[in-house]
Amino acid sequence: MKNDATEEQVQAVIKEIEKMGFRGVPMPGALRTAVCIIGNKGPVDATQLLAMEGVKEAIPVTKPYKLVSRETHPDSTVISIGDVTIGAGEPVIMAGPCAVESEEQALTIAAIVKKHGAKVFRGGAFKPRTSPYAFQGLGEKGLKILDKVRRETGLLIVTEATDSENLRAVEKYADIIQIGARNMQNYSLLRLAGQTKKPVLFKRGFAATIDEWLMAAEYIMSEGNTRIILCERGIRTFSDNTRNTLDISAIPSIKSVSHLPIIVDPSHAAGRRDYVIPLSRGAIAVGADGLLIEVHHDPAHALSDGMQSLYPHQFEQLMQEISRLKNFL
Amino acid sequence: MKNDATEEQVQAVIKEIEKMGFRGVPMPGALRTAVCIIGNKGPVDATQLLAMEGVKEAIPVTKPYKLVSRETHPDSTVISIGDVTIGAGEPVIMAGPCAVESEEQALTIAAIVKKHGAKVFRGGAFKPRTSPYAFQGLGEKGLKILDKVRRETGLLIVTEATDSENLRAVEKYADIIQIGARNMQNYSLLRLAGQTKKPVLFKRGFAATIDEWLMAAEYIMSEGNTRIILCERGIRTFSDNTRNTLDISAIPSIKSVSHLPIIVDPSHAAGRRDYVIPLSRGAIAVGADGLLIEVHHDPAHALSDGMQSLYPHQFEQLMQEISRLKNFL
Amino acid sequence: MKNDATEEQVQAVIKEIEKMGFRGVPMPGALRTAVCIIGNKGPVDATQLLAMEGVKEAIPVTKPYKLVSRETHPDSTVISIGDVTIGAGEPVIMAGPCAVESEEQALTIAAIVKKHGAKVFRGGAFKPRTSPYAFQGLGEKGLKILDKVRRETGLLIVTEATDSENLRAVEKYADIIQIGARNMQNYSLLRLAGQTKKPVLFKRGFAATIDEWLMAAEYIMSEGNTRIILCERGIRTFSDNTRNTLDISAIPSIKSVSHLPIIVDPSHAAGRRDYVIPLSRGAIAVGADGLLIEVHHDPAHALSDGMQSLYPHQFEQLMQEISRLKNFL
Amino acid sequence: MKNDATEEQVQAVIKEIEKMGFRGVPMPGALRTAVCIIGNKGPVDATQLLAMEGVKEAIPVTKPYKLVSRETHPDSTVISIGDVTIGAGEPVIMAGPCAVESEEQALTIAAIVKKHGAKVFRGGAFKPRTSPYAFQGLGEKGLKILDKVRRETGLLIVTEATDSENLRAVEKYADIIQIGARNMQNYSLLRLAGQTKKPVLFKRGFAATIDEWLMAAEYIMSEGNTRIILCERGIRTFSDNTRNTLDISAIPSIKSVSHLPIIVDPSHAAGRRDYVIPLSRGAIAVGADGLLIEVHHDPAHALSDGMQSLYPHQFEQLMQEISRLKNFL
Repeated sequence: MKNDATEEQVQAVIKEIEKMGFRGVPMPGALRTAVCIIGNKGPVDATQLLAMEGVKEAIPVTKPYKLVSRETHPDSTVISIGDVTIGAGEPVIMAGPCAVESEEQALTIAAIVKKHGAKVFRGGAFKPRTSPYAFQGLGEKGLKILDKVRRETGLLIVTEATDSENLRAVEKYADIIQIGARNMQNYSLLRLAGQTKKPVLFKRGFAATIDEWLMAAEYIMSEGNTRIILCERGIRTFSDNTRNTLDISAIPSIKSVSHLPIIVDPSHAAGRRDYVIPLSRGAIAVGADGLLIEVHHDPAHALSDGMQSLYPHQFEQLMQEISRLKNFL
Repeated sequence: MKNDATEEQVQAVIKEIEKMGFRGVPMPGALRTAVCIIGNKGPVDATQLLAMEGVKEAIPVTKPYKLVSRETHPDSTVISIGDVTIGAGEPVIMAGPCAVESEEQALTIAAIVKKHGAKVFRGGAFKPRTSPYAFQGLGEKGLKILDKVRRETGLLIVTEATDSENLRAVEKYADIIQIGARNMQNYSLLRLAGQTKKPVLFKRGFAATIDEWLMAAEYIMSEGNTRIILCERGIRTFSDNTRNTLDISAIPSIKSVSHLPIIVDPSHAAGRRDYVIPLSRGAIAVGADGLLIEVHHDPAHALSDGMQSLYPHQFEQLMQEISRLKNFL
Repeated sequence: MKNDATEEQVQAVIKEIEKMGFRGVPMPGALRTAVCIIGNKGPVDATQLLAMEGVKEAIPVTKPYKLVSRETHPDSTVISIGDVTIGAGEPVIMAGPCAVESEEQALTIAAIVKKHGAKVFRGGAFKPRTSPYAFQGLGEKGLKILDKVRRETGLLIVTEATDSENLRAVEKYADIIQIGARNMQNYSLLRLAGQTKKPVLFKRGFAATIDEWLMAAEYIMSEGNTRIILCERGIRTFSDNTRNTLDISAIPSIKSVSHLPIIVDPSHAAGRRDYVIPLSRGAIAVGADGLLIEVHHDPAHALSDGMQSLYPHQFEQLMQEISRLKNFL
Repeated sequence: MKNDATEEQVQAVIKEIEKMGFRGVPMPGALRTAVCIIGNKGPVDATQLLAMEGVKEAIPVTKPYKLVSRETHPDSTVISIGDVTIGAGEPVIMAGPCAVESEEQALTIAAIVKKHGAKVFRGGAFKPRTSPYAFQGLGEKGLKILDKVRRETGLLIVTEATDSENLRAVEKYADIIQIGARNMQNYSLLRLAGQTKKPVLFKRGFAATIDEWLMAAEYIMSEGNTRIILCERGIRTFSDNTRNTLDISAIPSIKSVSHLPIIVDPSHAAGRRDYVIPLSRGAIAVGADGLLIEVHHDPAHALSDGMQSLYPHQFEQLMQEISRLKNFL
C-alpha cells in the first residue's frame, strides 16, 4: 500500500483478495503497510488490485527480495563514506585485529595497516563467541579505543554489533556497522540496523544460500538503509582443508542478481594465514569490491584466534600484490 | 573466581598467570568474574592458581561447556512443568500449528491435539521468516490467544521468542519459551532466556555441530536457568529428499555427553507430512524424550508452510503408533 | 526400440525426431537400442513416434529412472534367497566383521551372529581402502573362507566386489554381491553386476542424492538383474558427532518412489559402537527391511576399523531389542 | 620391504612386530611387499625394524600418503608432454566440448580453441552419466576423432577413461588420460592408470577431502606413474548458486602439501557459462597451473550439458583476460 493509504483502503484490498479465493493479511511496516496474499498456488493476476485506491505495487513472492535486486535497480550501488568509495572499481581494504585488546595494540596495528594502504580499520569490541567462557571483547571501552584510532589515523572504523543495545553504541562510534555471520538471520537486529544512518557490512551466514542472504539484506533495506556492503566469509562444508570453504562464486552470483557491493573475508574463511594472500588475489581477480583482512603486530599473542592473522610483513606483501593486480583489472 | 572475590584477588591471579608465561584476561559476569588464560598451547597445570585466594575453580577450555555436561552432572535432568515431566521416560508430545492464525483456529487445533494425547500446544506468535514480506505472526495478539488455549484446554503452551522485546511477552504468556534454530547463536537472546524463570525449548541451528549447540545451551544455563529442553530439527546437507536431514544420531550423541532432555521435530526436518509418522517412530525408538509436531485442521489453507502439517487423522494415527511403541521401550 | 527392431526402423525414428526439430541419437544396449531425443526444452509429444514400426515405448527423461520406480512397479519387491526373504516385513539381519582376517576369526564370529539370529554373514575379502598402504583384504583366500562359513553354518554370505575381476569371484562364492559406497557411480561395475545372477546389496554413495542412487540402481536393473537391496549407510555432512550422518529419512523416501527393499548400516554411519543399538532401533521403527551390522569377537584387535564393531554381548542385546520391536510393528 | 626381500625376511619382520605387542600383516604389491602394523595406538618406534634385513623404510600411517607429498619431494613437479609443460609457471589451457559428437563438431571446436591459445583439446568419448538413458558418448569412434584432431591441429588430447577396458583404448589415443570425479575412489582403475605410460588428469571427487584425494593419487603413483595433474572441479555443498561450489582454496592446500600441479575446471563447478570467466581469473590469480574449459561452437545444440559451455567469443575473451593476468603474476 502507499504511505498514505487509509485503513479503509487496506480493508478493501483484503476483501478483493478474498473474492479472488485467497486470504489477505495486513503487515504494517515502519513506513507503509503491505498486504500478503496467502493460499495461492503460483502467480496471481494483480491487475484488479493495482487499480484500487491506495495500492502502490504488487511484489510477486516467487522472487522474495526486491529492494536489493538488480532487476529493480540496474546500476551498481556505490557507497561513499568520507573520501572512501566502495563499489566504484577500486578495491577497498579493511584491515586490523580480530579483537581490540588495548589502545596500544589498536594504534600499533592501525599504523601498520594505514602505512600499507588500508582505508578502513577493523577490530571487534563485542565478540560473539561460541563458548560463554571465551573472551567476549572489551565492549564500550573497545569502541572508545576505535574512536581514538579514527581520530589519530583518519582510518574509517568498522566493528560488529551483536544486539540491540550495543548496536546503538556501535552506531555512535563506528563508520560502518558490521553484522556478523551468526546474526545473519537475527531479523530484529537487521531491522534495527536498517533504521540507523550508518552503512552496514553484512556478512553471509556460514550456512546461508545466496537467496537467504539477500532476503536478510532486504530486511535491512526495507527499513530505509540502502547502504549495505555484503561480505562473503566462507561456508560450512565437509571440506576440512580450511576452516570454512570460501565460496568465491558468490561474487558473480551477487553481481548478477543484486546491485550491492560485495567484499571478501579470506581470513575467517581459511582460518590459516598462509592461504590469505592467494585467496585475496583470487577474490580481487574474480571481481570483489574489497577485502576484510585480519592483521596483528604479534599474532602469536593475539587474543582470539591468532592463527589466521597476518604478520605485518605479510600484509605489506598482500597490499603490493593487490596493487599490481588492480592494474590488470 | 568466587562470587566475593576482590579486585585485588583477581589482579593477583592475573599476575600469577603472567609468571607462568601466559596472559590473564578478566571476564566479569553477572555473578562472578572469570579470568581467561591466553597463549597456552595445550593444558595448563592450574594447581598453583587453585590454591590462591578467591579462586573457585579451573575450567579447561578444551571442553568448552561445563554446566550442560553429563560429566559434571551424571544424572539425566527431568523437567517438570505442572503435571508434565520431560525426560522421565514417557515421551511428551507437543503439537499444534506453525503459526497462530486466529482464536478459532488455535482452539480448534488445540482440541484435536488434546483429544489424541498431546500435553503441550505449540503455535508461533512471532515468526522469524526468511523474507521480510512473509507473514510474521500475530504478535502479542497471538500470545493472548495462546493464553486462552491454556485456560480452555489445560494444555501447556510453547511458543517462540525472537528478540529481547518479545521474550518478555513470551515469558509472561507461555509455559515454555522456544528459541529457534536461526537464533541458536544469538547470544544476547540466550543470556536473556537464561535469566527467565521458564523452561527453554532450545532448537539446534541447522548448521550447528553438537558441540556448538551445547556451548550455546551453556550460555543459557550459565545465567542460572537450568531447565533446557534440546530439540533436533534437521541439519542442512546436500541431500534433497527432505527439507533438512534429520540427524537422528543427535539423540545418542546428546545423551552421551549431556544430561539434558532432547526432543525431535520431524515436521520441520522433513518438510513433508508423509514422512512425519515414520520419522516420529524412529525418533522415539532411538530414545527421544518427546516430539514437536505440526498439526493443522486444514493444512491446505494454513498460513505459513502447510505442506508439512499433519491432518487431524494423521495425528491420531501418529499418537496411536507412539502409544504402542512406548510399551516396547 | 523393440528387441527385434531393424536398423532401418531406428533410422526412420531418428528422421522423424529431426522433423520435430530435435536430434535423435541411437544408444545401442545389450538387448535393444534406445534413441535419445536431444534439444527439447520440456516434454515431447511422442504419439507419432509410438505409432512407428519397431518402437517399444517412450521414456520421459524428466524422471530419469524407470525400472526401479514404484510408479511402474507398484508392489514392493520381495527378494528370496534360500529360505531368507528380504522386504516381506520381517527385518533381516546381516552381521559379521568388517574384513575376513582368517578362517578361525570368520568361523568364530559366524557362530556368534548365527546363535543370536542373524541370517546373513558379512565380511570383506576385497576392501576398498582410502590409503593404498592400508590392509586391502585377503582376496580370493577370503572368499574361500566365506564359502566355508556358509557350508559350516548355513548362513548366507554377502561380500563386496570392487572391480570387474573380483566381481566374477564374488559372484561365484557369495549369495549376495555387495557394491560399496565408493563404487556407487562406477557404471561399468554396475552393468556387470546387472549381468550376474546373484542379488546385489547396493550401498548409497556418501554424497549421493536419492535420485542419483536410484539412477545408479537403474544401471544394474537395466541389464536384467532385478534383485537389488538398497543400503543406506550415512551421508557426508558438516556434522562431526558421527563419522557420517545416518539419513534415516532415506527409508520413507525410497519406499515412496521405489519398490526395492532398503536396509540400513548403522555401523559405518556412526563409526562408533555405542550408537549402533539406538540407531538400529530407529531404522527398524522407521521401516527398514533389515540391518547390516559390524560384529567382532575381539574388536580391539580387529583388522580394519574396530571402533565400530559390536562386541558379542552387544550384538546379543541388539538382536533382543529388534526382536521385541518387531512385535510392536 | 626391499624389492629383493625374501619371504623369510618378511616373516622375521612380522615376528618382531608381534614381539612388540602388535600384529604384522604382509601386503604384497607389484614391486615389493609392505608389512602393516596393526593394533598400535599412536606412533610406533621403528628403530629395531629398520635395522632388520630386507627392510627398506617405515611409513607412519598418520600421514597416509607419501609419494605425492611435498615433504618427500620438495620441488614442484613439472610435467612435459611434447612442447607443453604443466606446472612451470605458464598456465596451460585445456578446452573443448563436453562430449565428442562428430568429426565435424570436434574439428570445428578444436580450430577455435587452438586459434585463441589453448594447448590441449578436451572432449569425452566415454561419458559417465548419472542416468543409463543419457547419451554415453561415441566410444572408440570418438577416440578416433580425437586422434584426427591431434593430427590436424597439433593440439594435445585429454579424454576420460571410465573402466579398465576403455582405459587401454584411451591410453592408446590420448596424450593425457582423464580420471573423472565419480571414479576418484575406483581404486582398481587408479592402479591401472598408474601402470600406463601417459600422464593422468585426476579430478577431485565432489565429496572428497584433500587428504582423500591425495591418498587416491598415491594409488596411481605407487604403481609407478608419477605424472599426475590434479584438477579441482567443485565440491558438493548446500549452496545452490552454482552446480558445485568451486573450492578455490584447494589450490594453496595442494601446493602446501603436495608437489603435483593442479588445474581448475570452472565449467563443471559453476554449471553456468556466465561465471566461467570470473572464476577462471580467480583460479589463475590464486595460483592454478591451468584451466579445463568447456567450449562449444553451438552450445544450444550441444549433446550433454550445453548450459555451461562457453560460446567461441566468450572463450576468446577468457583467453585475452588470462593472457593479461599472466603478465601480472
